[in-house]
Amino acid sequence: MNDSANYAPCAKPLEIPPRTLLGPGPSDVAPRVLQAMGQPTVGHLDPSFVKIMDEVKEGLKSAFRTRNEMTFPVSAPGSAGMESCVVNLLEPGDTAIIGVNGVFGNRMAENARRAGAHVVLVESPWGRPVDPARIREALRANPGARAVGFVHAETSTGVCSDAQAIAAECHAHECLVIVDAVTSLGGIPLEVDGWGLDAVYSGSQKCLSCTPGLSPVSFSPRAMARIAARRSPVQSWFLDLSLVAGYWQDSEQGGGGRTYHHTAPVNAVYGLYESLRMLHEEGLEAAWARHQRVHEGLCVGLEALGLELAVPASCRLPQLNAVKIPEGVSDADVRGRLLAEYSIEIGAGLGPSRGEIWRVGLMGSSASPGNVVRFLGAMEQILDRSGAVHAADAFFDHARPAR
Amino acid sequence: MNDSANYAPCAKPLEIPPRTLLGPGPSDVAPRVLQAMGQPTVGHLDPSFVKIMDEVKEGLKSAFRTRNEMTFPVSAPGSAGMESCVVNLLEPGDTAIIGVNGVFGNRMAENARRAGAHVVLVESPWGRPVDPARIREALRANPGARAVGFVHAETSTGVCSDAQAIAAECHAHECLVIVDAVTSLGGIPLEVDGWGLDAVYSGSQKCLSCTPGLSPVSFSPRAMARIAARRSPVQSWFLDLSLVAGYWQDSEQGGGGRTYHHTAPVNAVYGLYESLRMLHEEGLEAAWARHQRVHEGLCVGLEALGLELAVPASCRLPQLNAVKIPEGVSDADVRGRLLAEYSIEIGAGLGPSRGEIWRVGLMGSSASPGNVVRFLGAMEQILDRSGAVHAADAFFDHARPAR
Repeated sequence: MNDSANYAPCAKPLEIPPRTLLGPGPSDVAPRVLQAMGQPTVGHLDPSFVKIMDEVKEGLKSAFRTRNEMTFPVSAPGSAGMESCVVNLLEPGDTAIIGVNGVFGNRMAENARRAGAHVVLVESPWGRPVDPARIREALRANPGARAVGFVHAETSTGVCSDAQAIAAECHAHECLVIVDAVTSLGGIPLEVDGWGLDAVYSGSQKCLSCTPGLSPVSFSPRAMARIAARRSPVQSWFLDLSLVAGYWQDSEQGGGGRTYHHTAPVNAVYGLYESLRMLHEEGLEAAWARHQRVHEGLCVGLEALGLELAVPASCRLPQLNAVKIPEGVSDADVRGRLLAEYSIEIGAGLGPSRGEIWRVGLMGSSASPGNVVRFLGAMEQILDRSGAVHAADAFFDHARPAR
Repeated sequence: MNDSANYAPCAKPLEIPPRTLLGPGPSDVAPRVLQAMGQPTVGHLDPSFVKIMDEVKEGLKSAFRTRNEMTFPVSAPGSAGMESCVVNLLEPGDTAIIGVNGVFGNRMAENARRAGAHVVLVESPWGRPVDPARIREALRANPGARAVGFVHAETSTGVCSDAQAIAAECHAHECLVIVDAVTSLGGIPLEVDGWGLDAVYSGSQKCLSCTPGLSPVSFSPRAMARIAARRSPVQSWFLDLSLVAGYWQDSEQGGGGRTYHHTAPVNAVYGLYESLRMLHEEGLEAAWARHQRVHEGLCVGLEALGLELAVPASCRLPQLNAVKIPEGVSDADVRGRLLAEYSIEIGAGLGPSRGEIWRVGLMGSSASPGNVVRFLGAMEQILDRSGAVHAADAFFDHARPAR
C-alpha cells in the first residue's frame, strides 16, 4: 500500500463511480436521502435532534406496523441489530430454537451460542422456507424454551418464511419470537403487532434505501418484561436495551429528558428520517405492491432470457431474486462485466450457493421498471441473447400501477 | 407524539438549525466532509470502496502513529470501539486493571466486568490523572493481570493522563495496554507505536471532525497474538476481530480478497476519508499545535471573564476545557441561552460534576480562533462582563501560527 516514500494516505479527492445497485443491499440511495445525510451535524442531545429521533421512532413504528414504544434504530449495521435482539432476550443457560435455512439463520444461532444459550437448530434445505410444523415439534421437545428465532426474508437465498405461522406456534407455547426482518421491512408485508413478534431487527440499506449503518429494531412489551426480569446483565454494554432506552425515550433518570448513553450517528439518522419520509409519501402498502410488480417484470424478462429462478414461486422474495447460473456461464465473468461495462452490481451466492446462483436485488429505490430493463438489457448483451427487454417492457406497459 | 388522528410521521422536511459545536463532541463537521458523506452509495465490496477502505486504514495508521496492520474504523460509535477492544482482549476469568478518573474509565471497567473479567480498579479523584505509580502497585499486587486499561483524554473531566508512563509500567510486567483515545486522536500527541499501546480506540466525531458513528481502532501484533490464543470465542459476533479482519484485510479465505462480514456504513467511511484528508493536508503535528494555541487563547479570555478552569495546567486537555461554573450562575440558563440565542452548544458536566463545570470543546474543525471569540463574546453578554474578546483577540494576534 505505502511502499513508496512519497505515499501520503487519503491524498486524492474521493472518486465514487456511479452504480446501479441490484445486489443484496445496499440498494440505490435516493438523492434526497443523500442530501439529508449532508446536512450540518448537530449535537446528539440537541433539542432539534431529539425531535428528529422521535419522528424516526414513529416512522419506524409505522413501517413495522407496531405500537411498540421500544422501536428505534440501533446505531450500527443489521448484524448489531441481530446481536441486540439475541443478547437482550437470552441469558446463559436459556434454550433457543433457531430455524436455519441460510447464512443469516446460522448467524443468529452463532449469536445465541455466544450469548451462552443452548441452541436447538431446526434446519431446512437452503432455498426452502423454515417449516412451522418442525418448529412446533421443537417447541414440544423443548418445553420452557425461551425464544424461537428465524429469518423472515433470507437474504442469502431469496426465500420468504411464513413468519405469521411460525409466530403462532410460539404463542401456543408462550415462547418469545425473534425475527430477522433485515430484507423484509418495507418490501413485503410485515406485521409486527398483527403477527405477535417480540424482537425484530432490520437494516437501513435494504428496502428502506437509506445508507447502510443503522439497524431499526422493535421490542414488544413481552420482550421488555423479559429483559426487566433478567438475572444477569446483558453481556454487551453498547447494546444493553435498559441503558439505550434512556437515550431513545424520555426517562425519569434524565430529569424527564434524555440520558446520554452513546453518541448517535446523527447524520445517518437524518438520512433514515428522509427515507422514512419517502416510504410514507408512497405508502407502505403501495411500496409492497411496487416490489411485487417490479419482481414480476423481472421474472418475465428472465424467462425470455432462458434463465430460471432457484426458489419456488410459493416462497419467493420479490426483492431478492436467486437466479440459477446457467451451465457453461462463468459467475465471476458475468458479474465482472455487469460492473465494469454497465456499472450494475448484482450479488454472488453466499456460502454453498456461491457459483450456483446470482442474487438480483430489487429493493427500495432500486425496485423500478427502469432498473429491471437496464439489467435485462445488459444481460442480453453479455449472454448474447435477446427478447428480455421487450418482454419486460410489454409487462410493465400492461401492469401500470393504479393511480 | 401521535395523538392526532391526522398525525403522519416524518412528514415535514428536515429542519436542521445551524450550530457551533463547542461541546464534548460531535465537533463542527467541515462542509467538504458533509459533501463526501453525500456521495452516492456503492456496494460494501465494490472494488472502488475496497480502495477507499485501504486508504482510510493508511490514513488512520498515520494519525495513530502506528504500523499496526489491524487499524480500521469499527462500524459503530466509540462505545462499540471500547467494547471491541475489551471483549477481544479479555476472556472470562482474566484480571484487568482499570484506571478510573471519570465516566469513561468507569465505562471501560463495566465493559470488562461484562466480559467476565476480574476487574481491579485504580481510582483517582475526578479531575486528576491516572497515577502511573498506583498502576505499578496494582500490577505488582496482581501478577498475571491480562491488561491495564485507562482513558488517555477523559472527556468527562478534561484531564490528560500520561499514557506513555502508564504503558511503560505495563511493559515492565508484560501486560497488555488498552487505551481510550476517543478525545485524544488528532488533538494531542498520541504515539501508538512509540508508547507501545496494544489496543486503542477513538471516535470519528471529536478531533477528526467527522460525523459521529465510526470508531477508529488499532491493535498491535501482541494484541492480535493474544486474540489468536484465546480459549473461548469472543462474546460479540459483530465485534469479533478474527471475523472482522477478513473484511478489512485481504485474506486467503476470501480468495485473496475480502470476505463479507457485515455491511459497512459506506457513506460514513467516505466522510472519514475526507476528514483524514483534511488532517493530513494540515499535518498531524500542525493540528496538535493548533489545538494547543486555540486552547491558550480560550484560557486568556476565560481569565478576563473571571472564570476558572477546573483542571491544573499540568494535565489539562486543550481540546476539552472544564470551566468552573461561578457561584450564583445557573448552569442550565447559561447553556440554554448559548444554544437559543447564539446557537452555540457547550456541554454540561457528566455525573458528579454536573452543575459544577461546563465542558467547552475545541476539537478538530471547532478549534479555531473565530470560535473562541464567538464563544467569549456570547459569554460576555450572558454573564454581563467584558474584556474577554479583546484579550483573546490580542492573544491570537500575537500568537499567529508560523507559516
